[in-house]
This record gives sequence, structure tokens and C-alpha cells, in this order.
Amino acid sequence: MYVIGERINGMFVDIKRAIQEKNEDPIRSWAERQIAAGADALDVNVGPATSKQTEALLWMTDIIRRVSADVPLAIDNAKWEVMQEVIPRVPGPKIINSSKADEEALQRYCALAAEHGCSLIALTIDARGVPADVDSRVMMGATIVTKALEAGLTPDRVFIDPIIIPINCAPKQPVAVMKALEQLKILSDPPPHLVLGLSNVSQGSAKRELINRTYMAMAIAAGLDSAIMDPCDKELMDTAITAEMLMEKMIYCDSYLEAYRANRRGTPA
Amino acid sequence: MYVIGERINGMFVDIKRAIQEKNEDPIRSWAERQIAAGADALDVNVGPATSKQTEALLWMTDIIRRVSADVPLAIDNAKWEVMQEVIPRVPGPKIINSSKADEEALQRYCALAAEHGCSLIALTIDARGVPADVDSRVMMGATIVTKALEAGLTPDRVFIDPIIIPINCAPKQPVAVMKALEQLKILSDPPPHLVLGLSNVSQGSAKRELINRTYMAMAIAAGLDSAIMDPCDKELMDTAITAEMLMEKMIYCDSYLEAYRANRRGTPA
Repeated sequence: MYVIGERINGMFVDIKRAIQEKNEDPIRSWAERQIAAGADALDVNVGPATSKQTEALLWMTDIIRRVSADVPLAIDNAKWEVMQEVIPRVPGPKIINSSKADEEALQRYCALAAEHGCSLIALTIDARGVPADVDSRVMMGATIVTKALEAGLTPDRVFIDPIIIPINCAPKQPVAVMKALEQLKILSDPPPHLVLGLSNVSQGSAKRELINRTYMAMAIAAGLDSAIMDPCDKELMDTAITAEMLMEKMIYCDSYLEAYRANRRGTPA
Repeated sequence: MYVIGERINGMFVDIKRAIQEKNEDPIRSWAERQIAAGADALDVNVGPATSKQTEALLWMTDIIRRVSADVPLAIDNAKWEVMQEVIPRVPGPKIINSSKADEEALQRYCALAAEHGCSLIALTIDARGVPADVDSRVMMGATIVTKALEAGLTPDRVFIDPIIIPINCAPKQPVAVMKALEQLKILSDPPPHLVLGLSNVSQGSAKRELINRTYMAMAIAAGLDSAIMDPCDKELMDTAITAEMLMEKMIYCDSYLEAYRANRRGTPA
């Protein structure tokens, strides 16, 4: 499982306040905690904290780079102008998060990723929004892989996100996303990474952690191999590791949880 | 989820002792507890407690019938002679557990089930033992469905068990069983029930409950709709209910766990 820690995001009140007050401590602390809990990479998102997105992202990544010079940073921003400015100025391994799946966007984002040696997360969204069906997700996934390979990215640097939306407003989507995952994983050989913003499935629900970890196991059975998630949710991490062991991604031993954690950050971004 | 409570089985020390000492209390208590925890049916197995299998089964089922006249009882015994004697003498709804998948066995067990209005659990095992591959499981599943329909059983009275064996000695089997489940569920329309003796996956392992509930979610994603399991393991039950909600077997509401439990024993055996 390639775990991208979700916690450094201005959607969370403590991070929002930290950005607004220029307080480094919460950023540093969440970087340390997520890495210690088994994150392979860290998402970095300003969210609604400020309109000065570029400045805030550079400030946040600078703090995290002082914690770790080599943890991959998933620079999470919807604006092309921001991404274009930030990517060249953040040292170390990076993931561009994210491109949409229309050809013009993919052309630009893939070129940026190729130029700077980054990985790329691309969403199965186009100008019409998030598709409700399986086939549109798979067709957009095919476009993503094609454009990425044309730009010189290898499949292991491509993360396709088929987008999970909250169960409380879209009850058919968890099954649709699992079916899409099953087909997306055979798009190339080796396959692209398949990623979800996992906690979105339970947005606005009661019992969020139970829903997150149950869907995690189901999605891993369908082919998920990465998630933007909370690595500090120990039960969620245990579930992900156990599901991968049951998928024979690692051999069972009585101490398989400990063995996984001892080997964390084994997968390069 | 059609939950068959696993706990009244002479493999457990307290049940073994109860059978040997003719102590009704543990049998009665586990019947009550499993029903209260959400079991739709109760497995009844003498195990290694005594060689007088028929006598012990009749004694056990009599105690359980005084707790509930109508909870389906899964009479769990490998000997045809025992099954033939016990089935006609236990009142109320019953599940024959189990037949193997060779034609001769199926002929006899399906006829017995048809004659007494029982459901039937049939294992994808033949004279050569448990198959390691997916295709043999599916072929045996097809034989089971064919023979059952010929005998007049409707698909909802047929439970196919593709057999899960412990992860610590057979690491490829969890994936093979999931692939088999995906194919078995399209064998007939309506489909047969698909069942597993779930806790077998973690036999001899550390972290048994974590492995059981993680595999439960994955198997439900593949098509499992029934399990012989411990309904008193609340986290396992919560996981099963949540996985079914994510499969859109029930509509999400904030109190979906409570709603499921309030409606339990909704599926007839």
C-alpha cells in the first residue's frame, strides 16, 4: 500500500489556523506523526486557509522538508498556475496532485511531471464533472495512461484516482468505483497505481472510521494499491496491511503487521 | 448477510464438556447469545466430543428448540448415516451442512433436503479433496446448482461453500476463493447463496479477529452473502453490515447498524 498522508490540509482547523498565523508547529508535528505512523508520502494542501496559495504551499513544504529531505510530497492544488510555480521550487521527490482527464490538461500536467521527475495523480474527471458510471471512469483512465506514457512517464509514476463520493449522497458509487478499479488495473503492464481519497466515502456520515476501513479492504480486493488517508488511524492501517497480506502482496507471518511497518517507505514515488 | 452462528460446536472446549457432562446450560446460553447478537441461523456440530453423534445432535437441537422454535438449525455433520437419522427428527427449519460436490453425494443430500424442506450447504470438495484452483471450484459449484435444481430445491435454498483454508499454510487461497465467489454468484438467476466457514482463514494465526473481519469485507465485495461465523464478535458483525451497506444491499442512513440489527432474521433459510 502506498500511503499518502492526508492530514496537512487547510480543510482541518488546526492546519488552517497554522497557515493563517504562520505557526510552524502543527505542520512539523503532523509531518513527523504521519511519517512515524507509516506514510509513504505526504499530501500538502492549503485548502481554504488563504488565497495566497503559492506562498502558503512553499512555506508548508519548506517546513516539511526540514523534517524529511526525501519523503515524497503530493502537492495538492487545483490551479495550474499555482502548480507551475510551486513544483520547480520544492526540492526532493514530488507528486503532482492533480490533473483532470481532459487531453489538454493532461498534456500540460504530464509535461510538468516529466520535466521535473515527478509522479502524477490524475482524476477521472473531465469538463462534465465526476462520472457516475464505470465505463466513463475506465475510458478516462485509458486517456490518462496514454497521455502519461506519451509524455515519458512510466506506469509506476502514474496514479489514477477514480473518485469516490460520499455514501450518504451517492449509494451506488462504492460499487461503481470497485468495478472501475478492477478494469483500471489491467490498463497497462505494469499497471498504473490506483488511488482514492478514501475518507471522502464517509464524508458527513456517522461511523466514519468503520466505513473507511471496511471500504478500504473492499477496494484493495478490487485493485486499489494507494490511498490518500489518515496513517495515524491505526485500525485503518492495520486493515490495509491485512488486506494486502490476504491479496498475497506479502507473505503471512505472525508478525506481518510489524514486518510491514519495519519496511515502510519501500515503494518509490 | 445470512449469519450462521458457529459457536455451538464440540470443537470449543466449553461445548465439548457440556456434551460429555450432559450440561444443558452452555448450549442454551450460546443459542440465546448468538440469536441476540444477530445470528440468522445456528450451526450445531458435535465435533470430537463423543462418537455418539446422532444422540448428541438430537440432545443439542432439543435444547436449542426450547430457546427458539423457529431459528434455522444448520445440522453440521460429515456422516450421511447421522444426517439421515437426525434431519427427520429435528422440528422446525433446518439447513443440511454439508454435502460434497460429487454427483452421488449430491443426489442423496439434495433428495433429503427436498423431502424435508431443508436448505443445503454443499462444499466444493470431491473425492480428490479441496481444489487449489478457481476453475475446479466453479465447476463443482455448477454441478451443485444443477443437481439441486433437478431435485426441486430453489436457488435460495442452496448454499455453496468454496472452502477457505488457513492463510498461514495456503497464502494463495484467499485470492482464489474471491475469484471463485465472483464466478459462482452468476451460476444461476436468482443466484445461490455463497457461504464460507470464515474463521478458518485465520486458523492458527495471530491477530485472528483482524484477519477475519478484513477478509469478510473483501469476500463480501466478491459476492459472499452468508458466513458461518461468530455473531458475538461485534466488530466482525459491524464490518459485515457496513460492507453490505457499501454493496448497496441496504440504503445508508446514520443508524444503518441499528436498522440492520432491528430487522435481523429477515432472510428465510
